[in-house]
This record gives sequence, structure tokens and C-alpha cells, in this order.
Amino acid sequence: MSSHVEQSAVTVLGLGPMGRALAGAFLAAGLRTTVWNRTPGRERELAERGALSAGSPQEAVAAGPLSVVCVVNYDAAEAILRRPEVAGALAGRTVVNLSADTPARARELADWAAGRGIRYLDGAIMTPVATIGTPAAVFLHSGPEPLYREHRPVLDALGGTHTHLGEEIGRAAAYDIALLDVFWTAMAGYAHALAVAKAEGIGARELAPFAQGIGAILPPLFEQFAASAEEGGYSGEGNPITSAASSMAHIVQASEAHGIDAGVMRAAEGLARRVIGLGHGADGFVRVAEVLGRR
Amino acid sequence: MSSHVEQSAVTVLGLGPMGRALAGAFLAAGLRTTVWNRTPGRERELAERGALSAGSPQEAVAAGPLSVVCVVNYDAAEAILRRPEVAGALAGRTVVNLSADTPARARELADWAAGRGIRYLDGAIMTPVATIGTPAAVFLHSGPEPLYREHRPVLDALGGTHTHLGEEIGRAAAYDIALLDVFWTAMAGYAHALAVAKAEGIGARELAPFAQGIGAILPPLFEQFAASAEEGGYSGEGNPITSAASSMAHIVQASEAHGIDAGVMRAAEGLARRVIGLGHGADGFVRVAEVLGRR
Ligand SMILES: NC(=O)c1ccc[n+]([C@@H]2O[C@H](COP(=O)([O-])OP(=O)(O)OC[C@H]3O[C@@H](n4cnc5c(N)ncnc54)[C@H](OP(=O)(O)O)[C@@H]3O)[C@@H](O)[C@H]2O)c1
Ligand SMILES: NC(=O)c1ccc[n+]([C@@H]2O[C@H](COP(=O)([O-])OP(=O)(O)OC[C@H]3O[C@@H](n4cnc5c(N)ncnc54)[C@H](OP(=O)(O)O)[C@@H]3O)[C@@H](O)[C@H]2O)c1
Repeated sequence: MSSHVEQSAVTVLGLGPMGRALAGAFLAAGLRTTVWNRTPGRERELAERGALSAGSPQEAVAAGPLSVVCVVNYDAAEAILRRPEVAGALAGRTVVNLSADTPARARELADWAAGRGIRYLDGAIMTPVATIGTPAAVFLHSGPEPLYREHRPVLDALGGTHTHLGEEIGRAAAYDIALLDVFWTAMAGYAHALAVAKAEGIGARELAPFAQGIGAILPPLFEQFAASAEEGGYSGEGNPITSAASSMAHIVQASEAHGIDAGVMRAAEGLARRVIGLGHGADGFVRVAEVLGRR
Repeated sequence: MSSHVEQSAVTVLGLGPMGRALAGAFLAAGLRTTVWNRTPGRERELAERGALSAGSPQEAVAAGPLSVVCVVNYDAAEAILRRPEVAGALAGRTVVNLSADTPARARELADWAAGRGIRYLDGAIMTPVATIGTPAAVFLHSGPEPLYREHRPVLDALGGTHTHLGEEIGRAAAYDIALLDVFWTAMAGYAHALAVAKAEGIGARELAPFAQGIGAILPPLFEQFAASAEEGGYSGEGNPITSAASSMAHIVQASEAHGIDAGVMRAAEGLARRVIGLGHGADGFVRVAEVLGRR
């Protein structure tokens, strides 16, 4: 086996929707791709496209220098990697863990890997399945820079943008947590908005174009908020948090008047009320970030 | 006074940041603009630019055929409009209420207005102060179509896009509630994300570009979700709600491990768990909208 072929081989552990998308992108890029999943059967379509289907995770990781793990969380990742036969087969090889979990779990797993001579990179995927293999994909990585550089050519087969956030192994997970926080909170707001709109006789497709308009005003506000947060200037000029709290109360009322649970907005309103109670009612909503961070 | 001048006169009641922006845009468009605010002093800059400062709300509304009200909520709007001398002066004139509140309050106020011969339109402003007078402004209106058409030329001086959502007077407020639901939930998520990121040593400005990336993927997802919600197809293909719940749990853990309140995400995770508990774990997160709406 020439070292070129060796370098162009990759293993994917975990064939959920995302694992399958990753394996599919590797195959599309012409890499020799070995796959394995706890529950058999998920590899079928990939095997038809030329993937090698391993009978066990140890066989899968032994097939090449680099294994990409993409399962639901680190309990699942560890249930695979910490099997003694898998850990043994991984010694001297590289794991890129693209499963999502907390920074603390990433640090723990990296420590464990270091103790077994397993070369470990942690990463996070910030975009949906459909983006994988396209320029729209966004990947974050952390861990030893030389190791990242070594495997970057294979990772590039996944398409999109890859950013190495630094050597601290928990960094990708920390970004992931913060960004998914924005994402899932926004999605919860939208799902709730669809329910309230429906109760008011507004169809989802009627609301959607306006919701997209709201989506479009978020990015520049995120930028402004970040500047305020870093400069410690929380001015509410133009939109004081008292006004936000009032809007939030209307949303809770309108929702509950239809019998629709408003727990998420109640919690958000509570943050605004807390900020006001602490004497910052004239500040902007970004003051919430500072108050949340107080110890 | 020629009828042309009469039609080009407008009154603004309420000079918070938004009321001042509205009055400023009317002035910039060359309209004869009369202003009033409960607390004196806020009209100073507008008066320097040519606004007529009324000594009382009844004097303000008597100055022309159309009064735009923009105060914190309907309690405040009614505290002005329901004064007998104001209500009397408004008979036969038009009120466009751009204050935010619930659809129920809009319906109540419209009923009250009808009983006093006051012509009433309700509206909502969906974009920040800085957009007023620019193409980026977004206004929603509801109420009698002919009345809307009559005042549309003056409203157009506010710039941006004006959409008449229908004759049902609560419609603009219903859209407002649903859209602010998306907006404030997303902002709560972002403020929380900034706090968690900071605790992990990530600066707000480091996070912001990636948060903007998350913001950019929301609009197309809003569109997809709306289609799923209307068709009743809640498929989790590519991203089942079990996976979302797992991510949400990580966010709660990572946040609370830093002593940061995670109430908003706890409530959002609770919605996902409820959907899973009802047997819809293989569905996408949009199933939350349907479950929230169940009676
Ligand atoms: N889907 C997306 O759009 C998306 C976007 C960005 C990031 N991600 C992240 O990518 C990762 C994978 O997500 P996904 O969408 O593919 O689906 P998922 O539902 O999060 O994960 C499913 C995968 O996890 C495996 N798994 C679960 N418990 C296991 C255990 N105890 N031992 C071994 N394997 C186990 C499943 O194996 P079985 O088939 O045997 O159950 C399956 O391969 C997650 O961390 C997710 O947050 C996903
Ligand atoms: N600011 C924005 O970016 C924005 C964007 C979209 C929509 N809106 C909506 O526009 C409306 C006005 O917002 P705003 O930003 O100008 O600030 P605001 O803080 O929501 O409202 C301030 C105005 O309300 C008046 N007010 C409060 N209580 C009153 C009462 N009991 N009687 C009479 N007046 C009372 C204030 O008068 P005093 O000066 O006497 O206190 C002031 O004129 C709100 O409904 C808001 O949701 C604002």
C-alpha cells in the first residue's frame, strides 16, 4: 500500500444522517472510505457507492490512519472508542471526533486518548446534513495544530469552511455549544411563533416571509451586541430593555390566552425583568449577557 | 387651509425612541408634523427641525386628520386616547396605533374607537429605530382597507415596506407577537451564548462572525419548517428531535457548569422532551409547533 493511498483512506464511525453525509462526501472525493455503525444496515447505500463495510469498530479503525467519529454524543463516542480492542487498534492512529457534546467532555476524552497514544482532534459541524460536501458546510476544529494540518487534506473532502480555533481541545465544543445555543433557542422561538400564529388564524406560510425578514435583521444585531458586550457599553438608546420586557409580556399573554405553553418566553422575560430589577432598565437587552455571566 | 395641506398634516403621540424616529421621518418628508409626549422635553430636537409642539394630547390630535400613536403598550395608548377631551377631539379623525400589544387589546381598542366615531387602524413596526425613513423599515397594518388606502400616502413618508394584512383589526398585532416571539427568543439565545462563550474564554467578537453564520442559516430553515408545518409532514430526516434534545442538554450542562442560568434552554429542551415523550422522537424539531398548538 503506497503512502499516498494510505493517506487517502478514511474511516467513518457512526452512520446517522450526519455520519452518512460525511462518508458520502469522502466517497464522492474518491477517498477509500471504511464505515461502521452500531446498528447494522445503515451502511447499505454507502456500500453500493463503494464504501468498505467493516464488521466491527476495531476492524474499521484499523483500515487507515484516520477515523472520523460522528455519533449522537460523547457517551456514544466513548461506547465505541473505549472498547479495549478499539482503543488498542487506534494507538498511533488519529481520531477526529465530530460528535457534539460539552467542552468538558472533549477535554476528558482527549486526556484518555493521550494516555493510550491515540492522536486526537476534536471538531464540530455547524451546518445541516444537506450542506456537507458543498461550500456551505462549516466545520470547527481544535487540538494540536500539526495534527490538524496533517489531516486537513482529507477533511477538505467534506467541503465548506474549516477553521482551526486553537490547540485547546475544548474550544470547538465551546463554540459549538454557544452557537447551538443561538440556533436552538431561535428555532424554539420560531416553533412557538408558528403555534401562536396558527391559533390566530395565520398560516405558517403566511408568517414565513416575515419571519425570514426577522432572521435577516439578526446578523447585524449580533455584530452590534458583540461590540457592546466587549466594550461594556450596554446602552439601550433606541431600544431599552424595559420596552423588550413589555413586548415579551405581550407574547406570554397572547400565547397563554390560547392555552399555548409560553415557558421559553417566560424564562426569557424573566431575564429581562432581572436586569431591570438590578437597576439596568435603561440599558439594551445585551445587558442580559453581562448579568448572566455574574458570579 | 387647503385640503392638500390638511392631508399632509400628521400628529405623533409618544416620543420614545420610535415615536421620535417616526416624527423625524414625517418632518424629513416635508409633512406638517405636530408632536406630543406625556413627559415634556422629548420634543425639543423635533421642534428645532420644525415640528409643532402641542401643549396637550387633545390639541395635538386636533391639529390634523391623522394621529399616529407610538407608546410602550396599549395601557399607555389608552391612557392618552381614552381621556374624554382626546376622544372627543378624535371623533371623525383617524388614529393609526403603532404601539405594540396583543391582538385582543387591538380588538378592544378598535371597538371602543368605533363607539366614538373614531376611525381606527392598527399597525406594528417590525424593524429597529435606525431603519425608519429608510427602505429597510417594515410596517404591518390591519383594519378597513379604504381607510388604509386613504392614509397610505402619509404612512409612506415613513419609508420601507408597508403591508396591509387584512381588515381584521387584530392581524397586525398577531403578526407582531409571532415575529417578536422569534426575535426576542433568538436574542435571549444570543445573550446567553455570549455569557457561556465568555466563561469559556471566547470573546464576543470572536463568536460574532460564527453567530452571524447561524443567523444566515435560519431564514431558509424558517421556510422549510413552514412548509412542513402546513403539510403536517414533520419528518426528522437529517435531524431528528432526539438529536436536538441531546444538543440542548449539552448546552444546559455547559452553562450550569459555569453557574450560568440556563432557564431559557431548559424550557426549550423541555419542549423537545415532551415531543419525544409523546412518541414523536423520529420527527424534526418543527413537531414542537404542532404539539404546542394541541388543545
Ligand atoms: N444532523 C445534522 O444536521 C447535524 C448538524 C450538525 C451536527 N450534527 C451532529 O452530528 C452528530 C451525529 O448526528 P446525526 O444527525 O448523524 O444523528 P444522531 O441521532 O445525533 O446520531 C445518530 C448516531 O449515533 C449513534 N449512536 C447513538 N448511541 C450510540 C451508542 N451508545 N453507541 C454507538 N453509537 C451510538 C447511532 O447509532 P445507531 O444507528 O446504532 O443508533 C447513529 O450512528 C451529533 O453529535 C449531531 O449533533 C448533526
Ligand atoms: N424602539 C424600537 O426599536 C422599536 C421597534 C419596533 C417597534 N417598537 C414599538 O414602538 C413602541 C414605542 O417604543 P419606543 O422605542 O419609542 O419606546 P418605549 O419605551 O416602548 O415607549 C416609550 C413611550 O411610551 C410612553 N409612555 C409610557 N407609558 C405611558 C403612559 N402611561 N402614558 C403616556 N405615555 C406613556 C413614553 O412616554 P414618557 O416619555 O412620558 O415616559 C414614551 O413616549 C413600542 O410599542 C415598541 O414595542 C419599537
